[in-house]
Amino acid sequence: MVRGRISRLSVRDVRFPTSLGGHGADAMHTDPDYSAAYVVIETDAEDGIKGCGITFTLGKGTEVVVCAVNALAHHVLNKDLKDIVGDFRGFYRQLTSDGQLRWIGPEKGVVHLATAAVLNAVWDLWAKQEGKPVWKLLVDMGGERSQHEAPPKCWPLPLLSRCQDPRMLVSCIDFRYITDVLTEEDALEILQKGQIGKKEREKQMLAQGYPAYTTSCAWLGYSDDTLKQLCAQALKDGWTRFKVKVGADLQDDMRRCQIIRDMIGPEKTLSLFLQMMDANQRWDVPEAVEWMSKLAKFKPLWIEEPTSPDDILGHATISKALVPLGIGIATGEQCHNRVIFKQLLQAKALQFLQIDSCRLGSVNENLSVLLMAKKFEIPVCPHAGGVGLCELVQHLIIFDYISVSASLENRVCEYVDHLHEHFKYPVMIQRASYMPPKDPGYSTEMKEESVKKHQYPDGEVWKKLLPAQEN
Amino acid sequence: MVRGRISRLSVRDVRFPTSLGGHGADAMHTDPDYSAAYVVIETDAEDGIKGCGITFTLGKGTEVVVCAVNALAHHVLNKDLKDIVGDFRGFYRQLTSDGQLRWIGPEKGVVHLATAAVLNAVWDLWAKQEGKPVWKLLVDMGGERSQHEAPPKCWPLPLLSRCQDPRMLVSCIDFRYITDVLTEEDALEILQKGQIGKKEREKQMLAQGYPAYTTSCAWLGYSDDTLKQLCAQALKDGWTRFKVKVGADLQDDMRRCQIIRDMIGPEKTLSLFLQMMDANQRWDVPEAVEWMSKLAKFKPLWIEEPTSPDDILGHATISKALVPLGIGIATGEQCHNRVIFKQLLQAKALQFLQIDSCRLGSVNENLSVLLMAKKFEIPVCPHAGGVGLCELVQHLIIFDYISVSASLENRVCEYVDHLHEHFKYPVMIQRASYMPPKDPGYSTEMKEESVKKHQYPDGEVWKKLLPAQEN
Repeated sequence: MVRGRISRLSVRDVRFPTSLGGHGADAMHTDPDYSAAYVVIETDAEDGIKGCGITFTLGKGTEVVVCAVNALAHHVLNKDLKDIVGDFRGFYRQLTSDGQLRWIGPEKGVVHLATAAVLNAVWDLWAKQEGKPVWKLLVDMGGERSQHEAPPKCWPLPLLSRCQDPRMLVSCIDFRYITDVLTEEDALEILQKGQIGKKEREKQMLAQGYPAYTTSCAWLGYSDDTLKQLCAQALKDGWTRFKVKVGADLQDDMRRCQIIRDMIGPEKTLSLFLQMMDANQRWDVPEAVEWMSKLAKFKPLWIEEPTSPDDILGHATISKALVPLGIGIATGEQCHNRVIFKQLLQAKALQFLQIDSCRLGSVNENLSVLLMAKKFEIPVCPHAGGVGLCELVQHLIIFDYISVSASLENRVCEYVDHLHEHFKYPVMIQRASYMPPKDPGYSTEMKEESVKKHQYPDGEVWKKLLPAQEN
Repeated sequence: MVRGRISRLSVRDVRFPTSLGGHGADAMHTDPDYSAAYVVIETDAEDGIKGCGITFTLGKGTEVVVCAVNALAHHVLNKDLKDIVGDFRGFYRQLTSDGQLRWIGPEKGVVHLATAAVLNAVWDLWAKQEGKPVWKLLVDMGGERSQHEAPPKCWPLPLLSRCQDPRMLVSCIDFRYITDVLTEEDALEILQKGQIGKKEREKQMLAQGYPAYTTSCAWLGYSDDTLKQLCAQALKDGWTRFKVKVGADLQDDMRRCQIIRDMIGPEKTLSLFLQMMDANQRWDVPEAVEWMSKLAKFKPLWIEEPTSPDDILGHATISKALVPLGIGIATGEQCHNRVIFKQLLQAKALQFLQIDSCRLGSVNENLSVLLMAKKFEIPVCPHAGGVGLCELVQHLIIFDYISVSASLENRVCEYVDHLHEHFKYPVMIQRASYMPPKDPGYSTEMKEESVKKHQYPDGEVWKKLLPAQEN
């Protein structure tokens, strides 16, 4: 089924002027314009299928990521898709360990965001060619045969399409720098165990979806009235879990948290009605402990990004201080690679692990993190929102439930109700849950009209806005 | 003395085709073309003084850093230099915490390399205006008045030029995310203690220079004959400390290490004749321990970059295993910010700390790392080489000795004998030591002729090479 040679890669700078409405504002990112470096790859196959991938950005700097995608393009162009997915680990290593380019990373920041955009496009292309949504492609690759059956003859390479064996899935993962915690054998064992009850979980997901929480109500840029109004509407729509941005001003935080707690009710973990808090890296370690001790009375399930995403030992210290107060630590949206996640797990520095579909190296690197989280029995609660992040990450978390974690306990996926209208296959939320996508691919294809309108700086939207902003 | 408004910022992509000669090759970077994003800032002052700054790169990807410098330029243009250096902490924070740009970092990878290039240019400009080399500017800012004298009236702002007070130095540092280890008060205390004997140490540096070791002899790209020949020549020139690249092939490593050990003699720490090893992140944690156990018989002082630069806990594990064998752990050239260094110190993960003048946020962030290293009593042995790194980092390590560490024990600065001829104020090495620069500035100004010739892709050198490489 896998076919074609990559004949073209294009990348565009697409920006939505969300800062105008105060959407997305937090303690560190006060005026984000949700944006994306949007990659489209084409093949010489006659089916005309394109792979679309994004990485999420906040406006300025998108052009830098676009530049990095162009720097990576020569690794992709003129490659057969079957060679890429047939040795996906090797291809991943090639992208992330280019002898010259790795200096400006390695596996972090701009180049890694660019790597994610490119690989997201490859996964979209692959899944579309297989006629499956990415979550289903992964679930099927995770193994459908009995544990006692002999390994398929198709193994090792060349890859035969639809070869359903956990080893195929594991062959997508670069284990470099994580073998002290997760070896290939560990990964296989986890996936083998994940076989038990898998079919039932898939049915369950298709019927009920994956539980979500909403961040749409309580951005720092919103007034109290907006907050109340959005919260009331969300409760009506069936939402029971709310996240509030904190960290800029303690008095403001207390007032806003009280508003939400009043609206959702006094209980916490015994009820489905939960509150999470998010400081977006605003604090130093001692400050985080002090500030959150004062907010503990509002009974948050977690405090997210209390300090620098690089500070593993800092998170461990904060965790040690706050867990006794009933507050867990969540982080991940700016953790730049699997090595950071490995250490957060080793150091017992978090109670909720938040993968991101665009910061890590696409599905490949996220697989390694899901498996490490399973090994440490830490629940994965993905970061989403922005533009396209919900579309992407739902595939990963649905796969996680069906094939890896086999649990919904303490697990919930972020949802933000913005910009979905620009996608050809937008997320579907029912009863505050993500319903598994059914269209083939990674749900990242944008409407061409939206892309054209929001291209920076030449799209219609920016042609109007830019002169106004300059005045 | 500080004057002028920044009226222009230009940035160029300058590449030297070092890969053609196998120079600079290591286990992970097999074909580096030593390159730089070269920033020049100009002011509207009549003196015509320009500030020049670089960040070091390996060829491909330099254009991405150039793009990031342009994205940062608006923070610099039209600013008065006196406002910048008068609130340097604030200016640093502005560059590193731009509400939109920080998403593609934060403080790591491409944007942080770009930040370093811009700030290096600012320091060059400031020091030139003050008529001092950067090391001397720092030493004088570190405080020359008696400890019992009242704080200068010039404090706080507005800044008066030549205000010599440790608080001026400390005001350049952003303490965000490190206050659990180093507060402003800690920093002041360290600098106050550094006053004792400072004048003598400055005299000593001017007379004898700062001790260096050479990496020029043993790149992975060199044949055994070249290795022997370069090593023999270096011994003649007075070099006694040699670094060898390892990690690609164990048998090769053993042969090459034996060659060097045979040439420099059997002793280690009791003699001045030392050997260091550098794996450039080639190994996973268990592999690093295993491999180095086999190389222990060659008595290396340290193993450098045994694994991922992000793996603090991994370095701690390796350190615990190798220190009993007499091998220290060194890392830093790819540690992306002060938060990583903080943790390496907290976790006892290194015995030698290698700052880099272009990966961290210029002098400002390096100051915080020098002070943290002092607090933990870990010797700083800077990374240098590449293009311009020796020119820059000598200022930092000479300042470190005079004003912070006050010790040369277990301390040595890397030196590589390449590309100095392209600088207007190249390093001066005497008796295997860095002699303190006397010209004003940060020694980063390149010869305009060299820049023009090596600009990528339009310079003369590349116009000739590129068509040849395409064939």
